[in-house]
Amino acid sequence: MGTLAVVGGGAVGLAVAWHAAEAGWTVTVFDPAPASGASYVAGGMLAPLSEGWPGEDRVLEFGAAALAAWPAFGERLRAVGGESVFVADATMTVALDGADAADLRTVADWLAGFGHDLTLLDRAGVRAAEPALARTVRAGLLAEAEPAIDNRRVLRALRAACAATGVEIRTQAVAALDDLPHDRIVLAAGAHSARLWPELPVRPVKGEILRLRHRPGVRPAPSRVIRARVHGRQVYMVPRDDGIVVGATQYEAGFDTTVTVGGVRDLIADAETVLPGIGEYELAEASAGSRPGTPDNLPLLGHLDDRVIAATGHGRNGMLTLALTATLVSGLLADQPSALADIAAPQRFPALRLSTSGGVR
Amino acid sequence: MGTLAVVGGGAVGLAVAWHAAEAGWTVTVFDPAPASGASYVAGGMLAPLSEGWPGEDRVLEFGAAALAAWPAFGERLRAVGGESVFVADATMTVALDGADAADLRTVADWLAGFGHDLTLLDRAGVRAAEPALARTVRAGLLAEAEPAIDNRRVLRALRAACAATGVEIRTQAVAALDDLPHDRIVLAAGAHSARLWPELPVRPVKGEILRLRHRPGVRPAPSRVIRARVHGRQVYMVPRDDGIVVGATQYEAGFDTTVTVGGVRDLIADAETVLPGIGEYELAEASAGSRPGTPDNLPLLGHLDDRVIAATGHGRNGMLTLALTATLVSGLLADQPSALADIAAPQRFPALRLSTSGGVR
Repeated sequence: MGTLAVVGGGAVGLAVAWHAAEAGWTVTVFDPAPASGASYVAGGMLAPLSEGWPGEDRVLEFGAAALAAWPAFGERLRAVGGESVFVADATMTVALDGADAADLRTVADWLAGFGHDLTLLDRAGVRAAEPALARTVRAGLLAEAEPAIDNRRVLRALRAACAATGVEIRTQAVAALDDLPHDRIVLAAGAHSARLWPELPVRPVKGEILRLRHRPGVRPAPSRVIRARVHGRQVYMVPRDDGIVVGATQYEAGFDTTVTVGGVRDLIADAETVLPGIGEYELAEASAGSRPGTPDNLPLLGHLDDRVIAATGHGRNGMLTLALTATLVSGLLADQPSALADIAAPQRFPALRLSTSGGVR
Repeated sequence: MGTLAVVGGGAVGLAVAWHAAEAGWTVTVFDPAPASGASYVAGGMLAPLSEGWPGEDRVLEFGAAALAAWPAFGERLRAVGGESVFVADATMTVALDGADAADLRTVADWLAGFGHDLTLLDRAGVRAAEPALARTVRAGLLAEAEPAIDNRRVLRALRAACAATGVEIRTQAVAALDDLPHDRIVLAAGAHSARLWPELPVRPVKGEILRLRHRPGVRPAPSRVIRARVHGRQVYMVPRDDGIVVGATQYEAGFDTTVTVGGVRDLIADAETVLPGIGEYELAEASAGSRPGTPDNLPLLGHLDDRVIAATGHGRNGMLTLALTATLVSGLLADQPSALADIAAPQRFPALRLSTSGGVR
């Protein structure tokens, strides 16, 4: 053990810092605005099965492992934060037309081949489970194993965990990793990571999200996460204690977290198509984040050189992957190999094989 | 002269306080949150002609007088605040269908009878004047005499004017007018005025508004105020230095300033129907205010008893009426009669004839 710098104080950075501190490292987190980036904007859906698609087997394997790590991790967060971080027990993907309904069957059949048993629901079954949904919903796929978390409760718990384990959080930016004298470095700067390690294939994928607050007299929201496709766009609604999070737009827009009129318009329209009662909700917040996207929708977890470990590139799945990422990075810091870490190893991209050899740095 | 309490620190209260202080009164404004109510949310459109309708002759007369008071008042605000408060020179009402186009002609003919000459524009004329408008706009009515102001610049200038003239602003609520020892009282508490004088026929009319910010590369917004009717709802777009204000919903919802999903949805949809490029704007703010509505859409300006003067009930026209209201209240404080003040006299409502006689207080 020795000194560890964690560059980036989002959920991933804080979780890594906490686990490393518990393992005996002296940890400093660097972030000019901790807990304020993509993980503050996130919806908190943990749905690697429902979001799967035939052929994306490695993404499914990694996502299912990430999901499996959540119950124990969530319990630890509850213990340190004093409140449960879970806000829903299950996820239902709904179909508004025949093509979408056929897709639900395709996904269910493919998942069954991996031992994941989801439940196909007809129109009446959807209605019985979630009466608030639109009458135009004609089928559903219920994933009982996919809960959702409140991202801001997770961030609060992680900050408490860091404080309790002696992690120092410095609200300052890191201009270059070479400036850091620490024995080891974890690069967890999300979409900004490529600024510090240019070969990393991480790019910002802008996402806008709405937070709707329940008002007296308004019909209760669904108790499960609801996912749908409307006009070719994915929309999801994740329960919160006081309402719903509606997400999320996706743009390749560079580092831009401006909330646009068009983004808000589309989110409202798509959500209202699935859940007609939301017009009466309060529009409590519209915000945007920069997800750290990668070319293959898998994160970048692993050594970049002897001193630096990447923990970035989580794309839309930063919260889903959080528990697994913290565990895998702990293993990397302890020089323990892992087949799961190999799936996410940065060296799957040629530019990073070069940099690991020291050739480009 | 003596001591004057102004209850309510919105635009009307501050303007009244400023003028009274200049006339020699020792003025105290009471408001738990000065400059934060309906006048902070306002669009700033000064359009009594464009908003007129045959038969509403007294509203037109009062509104036209209010508009005529603005150039000199605006110049005084510029002098004290250091910046012009005007953000547009003219107002264009546009028609999206034949019925609306016929309405524009009806209004233009009626206004001409009062000596107000507005310009009817055909499709090409509208396009030439405001190229950003939708191609579906088929006619327009241009009011060269109707400018718009930035309500927040007005509030800043009014605060500066109050500070410069020795007005004391106390951030505290008034529970009852009898608690105030002042020689005279101006009740300018907007929609809250009926709490302090129950016979006043003032009710809150909720209005939601959006503030859109221009982004690089996005088509410039119109330089004039644009008004239209979409799906039976009025929508207007008022220029700002950095974008546009889009307003406004209208609900009879009691004291509720919650921004609803449905309100934002409708404002975006209606504005986009008239101005298709706004999807690319930033949605910088969505907010709501409680307009002080009256049964006849005229304000309540005048003595309630020997000590108390009402200056409330300005409805959607608080900014329009601001300059005239300040002048008329100054006249009332100096015991000068005014035919215009008579139009807005509270005694036009029977319940207030009773209270003026002292019978109910």
